[in-house]
Amino acid sequence: MTRPYWNRALETMPRERLEKMQARMLREVVERAYRKSIFYRDLYRDAGIMPSDIRTLEDVRKLPFVDKAAIASTYPFGMRMCDQAKVRSLHAATTTTRHIVPIFATALDLDHWAERCARILWMVGLRPGDFLQNAFRFGLSTGGVGFHLGAKRAGIISIPASTGGTDRQIDMIMDLGVQGIAMMPSYALYLGLRAQERGIDLAGESSLKVGLFGAEPTSVRMKRRLAELLGLEAFGEYGMNEFLGPGMACQCAVKHGMHAWADHYLVECIDPATGEPMAEGEPGELVWTWLNAEGTAVIRYRSHDLSEVTWEPCPCGRTHPRVRRISGRNDGALSIGGYIVYPSKIAHVMELFPEVGTFQVILDSVKGLDCFTIMVEPEKGAEVDPVRLAGRLQSAVKSYVVCTPMVHVVPRGSLGLVGADPPYRIIDYRRSSGRYGGAEGE
Amino acid sequence: MTRPYWNRALETMPRERLEKMQARMLREVVERAYRKSIFYRDLYRDAGIMPSDIRTLEDVRKLPFVDKAAIASTYPFGMRMCDQAKVRSLHAATTTTRHIVPIFATALDLDHWAERCARILWMVGLRPGDFLQNAFRFGLSTGGVGFHLGAKRAGIISIPASTGGTDRQIDMIMDLGVQGIAMMPSYALYLGLRAQERGIDLAGESSLKVGLFGAEPTSVRMKRRLAELLGLEAFGEYGMNEFLGPGMACQCAVKHGMHAWADHYLVECIDPATGEPMAEGEPGELVWTWLNAEGTAVIRYRSHDLSEVTWEPCPCGRTHPRVRRISGRNDGALSIGGYIVYPSKIAHVMELFPEVGTFQVILDSVKGLDCFTIMVEPEKGAEVDPVRLAGRLQSAVKSYVVCTPMVHVVPRGSLGLVGADPPYRIIDYRRSSGRYGGAEGE
Repeated sequence: MTRPYWNRALETMPRERLEKMQARMLREVVERAYRKSIFYRDLYRDAGIMPSDIRTLEDVRKLPFVDKAAIASTYPFGMRMCDQAKVRSLHAATTTTRHIVPIFATALDLDHWAERCARILWMVGLRPGDFLQNAFRFGLSTGGVGFHLGAKRAGIISIPASTGGTDRQIDMIMDLGVQGIAMMPSYALYLGLRAQERGIDLAGESSLKVGLFGAEPTSVRMKRRLAELLGLEAFGEYGMNEFLGPGMACQCAVKHGMHAWADHYLVECIDPATGEPMAEGEPGELVWTWLNAEGTAVIRYRSHDLSEVTWEPCPCGRTHPRVRRISGRNDGALSIGGYIVYPSKIAHVMELFPEVGTFQVILDSVKGLDCFTIMVEPEKGAEVDPVRLAGRLQSAVKSYVVCTPMVHVVPRGSLGLVGADPPYRIIDYRRSSGRYGGAEGE
Repeated sequence: MTRPYWNRALETMPRERLEKMQARMLREVVERAYRKSIFYRDLYRDAGIMPSDIRTLEDVRKLPFVDKAAIASTYPFGMRMCDQAKVRSLHAATTTTRHIVPIFATALDLDHWAERCARILWMVGLRPGDFLQNAFRFGLSTGGVGFHLGAKRAGIISIPASTGGTDRQIDMIMDLGVQGIAMMPSYALYLGLRAQERGIDLAGESSLKVGLFGAEPTSVRMKRRLAELLGLEAFGEYGMNEFLGPGMACQCAVKHGMHAWADHYLVECIDPATGEPMAEGEPGELVWTWLNAEGTAVIRYRSHDLSEVTWEPCPCGRTHPRVRRISGRNDGALSIGGYIVYPSKIAHVMELFPEVGTFQVILDSVKGLDCFTIMVEPEKGAEVDPVRLAGRLQSAVKSYVVCTPMVHVVPRGSLGLVGADPPYRIIDYRRSSGRYGGAEGE
């Protein structure tokens, strides 16, 4: 570790200069949004805001919040803020409706993305010639591609392993001498247990040194367990598809919160009820602004992630603020297998089937992996073939919600939900098991 | 189409100059292989060949062939021909054994890959600002990533849709106004039929103009059907994971064979029995040499793909030789859902389970999608729980062979295979249905 920072000048820039840079970028992005996007122009006009009202960093508070529903309403092109010919790749966030929210990335956006991820891979200790086995999904969601770009930028060898093929993943770790893995913590746990089952001691016999874990809530206890099982140092990372995450925030070796790159994003912490800023270090809801976005700017986005923000100096030398562990969400969204799933979206899919009456979603965990089941009662008077209907519902949910559930069609009345409003119930056994830790955690 | 070629100088270079360039690149790659790879040094020494014996293009015939088994025997690092610190990403080809063959790509290899794919996307008529919805898999196999790189290079917008989520894919085509799709022809057929089922007329109502179809055998009839169903011009493309395909060969508008980029690859056509060269235009087995590879060079690789090669001038103006439609394979490998699957590999997986006796593989197609079933008889005297065993076999096959089969454990004797050697049988209903066309084809 002769060179501790990927980009010393930017990572250790004094807070005052960082905030001055943020204020300038904020002015620019609001100005551009107002000029290029009908969505933002209308939003700001309705709020009586002109770009010229935004001068200092505190002026961000004058801007209305946006949320998933608002950006979803702009489908398909409302979030594009550049000429289409400048777009190089399209990614997507999920929504509460059946549509995706397209995120348009220009060459500059992709370049910034690579820079953010390179910083993170370097920060956790990976170096040129090291292998990073990247088991986040590759595709519309941004997990896989982000670290792939970052690894290339930092000279680290990206293995786009994607999800699944656990035995092959274990073989690669052992046979290639992989140093770093990036995946969901629940999948890492499954992988570690499967290796044990095969008599392979990853902690003792592999070259693993670093694990990057994200895309679902986790706890200190879980990370400690992974560190022991896999023989590595476990780092938490944070990102949202709306912002071309990953690359938004990650733990340094101090592990007292995740540094959020302030030269790319502005993070606020608000009182979820009033929208007023929380005092530094006080828990609230994270609100993010993407300061250097060119293709799709998301400004003052309510993430519904509950955490806290601190600018307290970090012993690692990085000056960027830290967000603490995400303690939960305040919008009822479910994290299933790394995807944010809204019960209302499952309901939207079910509405496509007039023969479906009420339903119940059951979440559980088996060997550390999320297990997602839907029990369905037919509508009154509907004649259904239970097996055929279950198959059609399964593929419809998979198509729109991305996660694949087990679906069972059960006799009418057996869920005790007939006439209920909303016509469904969510049971999450994972929470009561305390797997995602509560009081503990950093 | 004011600019018909992506790279006019290289795509229309006279054959004589192309071949001179190939001869120089061949000398260089053999020299480097000899110097950097124990595998090639031993291979060439045993054959009594020194790099200095390779002077002209015809001298390539002095070099011994390599095949999957040979490169698989070098696992894990035998195919790496550069310092590990120069590697930027790792991809993989499947083998007959349970391991992958890692393909090591340097920054230069990735740059060449982007160039090859950009040429193809431009050749079929996509232009900056167009969307390419890329439904090849993203991950270790090279399909998705290749066209993603090429699109970025050519200024085309890559949508890394990956496989699955068919309804979402249809929505994106319609809502974003997608111009190009890249996917397996069988998946395109499924997608088109599903759109029909939803009352969406892709041919009449979408912006589709181009389809790139590859990764499995196809026919003129199938492409004509896709053209009609989806309202686009259908182009066949060809690539192998061993060579960071896609980007090896693709049809131009003339559609009389696929141009194989001669400044990157040398393609020969041999008599499969004798290894002697076929006369130009005569059918035989394709043998490929990767002329500009830096990380992993594959030299004189027997593809087992049956086709023919012609240098006849093409009306499109491109001078690179053309390979005709792949009429089949001569090694018994199966193409299942776009993956090359060796029955021997399934057998390797089955051997991991002492309770498995004999088995039967059944391939069929349902709505144009491959359907892969394995029927298993237990070993004599083995006490098995049929459902549990089927589940374990399914995930083991999925893990190593990548395709997921339906697995049924049936009573001993019911397949009529007891005591058979090899202990399995392959039944491919897809062939007898003539789906992959026979006499027709270009």
